[in-house]
Amino acid sequence: MKKFINTVDNLLDQSLRGFAKAHADIVQLNAQPHFVSRLKPTAPGKVALISGGGSGHEPLHSGFVGAGMLDAACPGQVFTSPTPDQMLAAAQAVENGGGVLFIVKNYAGDVMNFEIASEMLDCPNATVLVCDDVSFPKSHSTGRRGVAGTLIVEKIVGAAAEAGADLAACKALGDKVNRVTASMGVALSSCTVPALGKPTFDIGDNEIEMGVGIHGERGRERIAIRSATEIVDYLAGIIDDDLKPQQGQAALLHINGFGATPLMELHLIYELASLFWEQRGLNICRSLVGNYTTSLDMAGCSITLSLLDDELIRWWDAPVHTAALRWGC
Amino acid sequence: MKKFINTVDNLLDQSLRGFAKAHADIVQLNAQPHFVSRLKPTAPGKVALISGGGSGHEPLHSGFVGAGMLDAACPGQVFTSPTPDQMLAAAQAVENGGGVLFIVKNYAGDVMNFEIASEMLDCPNATVLVCDDVSFPKSHSTGRRGVAGTLIVEKIVGAAAEAGADLAACKALGDKVNRVTASMGVALSSCTVPALGKPTFDIGDNEIEMGVGIHGERGRERIAIRSATEIVDYLAGIIDDDLKPQQGQAALLHINGFGATPLMELHLIYELASLFWEQRGLNICRSLVGNYTTSLDMAGCSITLSLLDDELIRWWDAPVHTAALRWGC
Repeated sequence: MKKFINTVDNLLDQSLRGFAKAHADIVQLNAQPHFVSRLKPTAPGKVALISGGGSGHEPLHSGFVGAGMLDAACPGQVFTSPTPDQMLAAAQAVENGGGVLFIVKNYAGDVMNFEIASEMLDCPNATVLVCDDVSFPKSHSTGRRGVAGTLIVEKIVGAAAEAGADLAACKALGDKVNRVTASMGVALSSCTVPALGKPTFDIGDNEIEMGVGIHGERGRERIAIRSATEIVDYLAGIIDDDLKPQQGQAALLHINGFGATPLMELHLIYELASLFWEQRGLNICRSLVGNYTTSLDMAGCSITLSLLDDELIRWWDAPVHTAALRWGC
Repeated sequence: MKKFINTVDNLLDQSLRGFAKAHADIVQLNAQPHFVSRLKPTAPGKVALISGGGSGHEPLHSGFVGAGMLDAACPGQVFTSPTPDQMLAAAQAVENGGGVLFIVKNYAGDVMNFEIASEMLDCPNATVLVCDDVSFPKSHSTGRRGVAGTLIVEKIVGAAAEAGADLAACKALGDKVNRVTASMGVALSSCTVPALGKPTFDIGDNEIEMGVGIHGERGRERIAIRSATEIVDYLAGIIDDDLKPQQGQAALLHINGFGATPLMELHLIYELASLFWEQRGLNICRSLVGNYTTSLDMAGCSITLSLLDDELIRWWDAPVHTAALRWGC
């Protein structure tokens, strides 16, 4: 394993210190327990948005803390849920009279720990569970995983919360975005978790894993490498089957890199995926391309489509000022 | 080789189309010959800033086209200089009465082709040659290479040009930034050029290449992998020896990922490098961490330090609105 680390034990702490220092105009770091929160105070009564999850997916979630998006993020160890005490401490620090909305990716550990925090928290709170990964059917035993669509939920609900939407409205909006969002990923290589020191899975020189999870979980099937157009048609086809968009439907197309795939290839994927849906009569009117929900050093990408109405477009376009997403302010 | 491509021949074209489509609010693509330029017109008399170079370093340079930075970028094939006709066409398209400033990384092919374009161009023009890579001594036969410091030149001169600085002032400012900027890189793995289909160089499981170039060029020496602190001390030590900053000197610290190194590790490097210089009395007052000057899928990073005065801080902080750098607007 080749990584820039000192010890596995202090990797997260040193990395978070660097992140907070590099973005000291936007965030502050609470070291014990770990959470990242906004530097600037919010308007009294604003719903506080909190997310979190295992580290190794940066910039998700800490990179989305700031005006117009999250109030706080709780980073766990690599690919490991944060603990309820982190979530509780973050919630107590940022709650500002409007209650707390937790935005949680659907993984057993995250779900359980956010539930515990929710029960311990002495203020109104609700949870949006994100499950946008359509690699598995809706009927899958533990439900679908939350992947790159999570940031779309965070951005849109973040804008509404900033504009004064109350807790129930934010919760309903988050659930709505989750319903109209679908993602599928493909891995060309495994990632390597520092504490393990070797690749999470083996994959042949000519194989790719279709429907892979963001921790390297098994996907739908392993197939031989093929052209970018064939890969896009496969992934986009499953998303399209799931969302069944109408002709003329407005949509956001998000191409997410898993960490080790060049931006040049992500833009090529964007071109092919936008052609796929334009040929089916969709109006791809918003875009996001880059490494946003990563899987450490995995090569690969995911395609996410969110069906938009005027309300969602307005919240997507609203100003955001975070380390990783920034526009309009 | 596993990459998201259809054919090596149409990789650049499909990727540029995706880039231009995903950022259609900022840039437009000229397809024949290839260049990317701003969507919105500039003020009459503004100096036009043009950069370019081989592709595979995205978001450099196309990702830096937009208000407050470049007027156009000319992408060559992967790791291959663009041609003079691209540069000439870009210059003729964006020249607006203030002349043209070419910002060129110091590689033989780029230098030669930009010189030809400069001679063919029928308007006042000048060139800033960027050579911030301190891996080799200043006396090296072809001079030092231009690497991650290039974007700092582009950002600072871009702000001055936007504010109305004339061609001579922009040229002088670019040369000044280049003089106070130094970079050193380290590779953990090779990159793989699509047309070649195999890694550019071999490197052992326990080796790292100190002072590597952004195309995988040989660096200072190959050493055994060591702790992140030792790697940072090595790289920062060479930069510090070169720039010889004074106590209390203000500086911008830029940690650049080569493409396949997780953001988590880049932030850890930022933490260690900022400690290195804080302990030497520097005032690290500006920061930039992320994948900006990449080397396809190479694992590794570079450290860049730019010594700042009030003028440079003012231009660095000025609004910028491009695909890859965005603040203040």
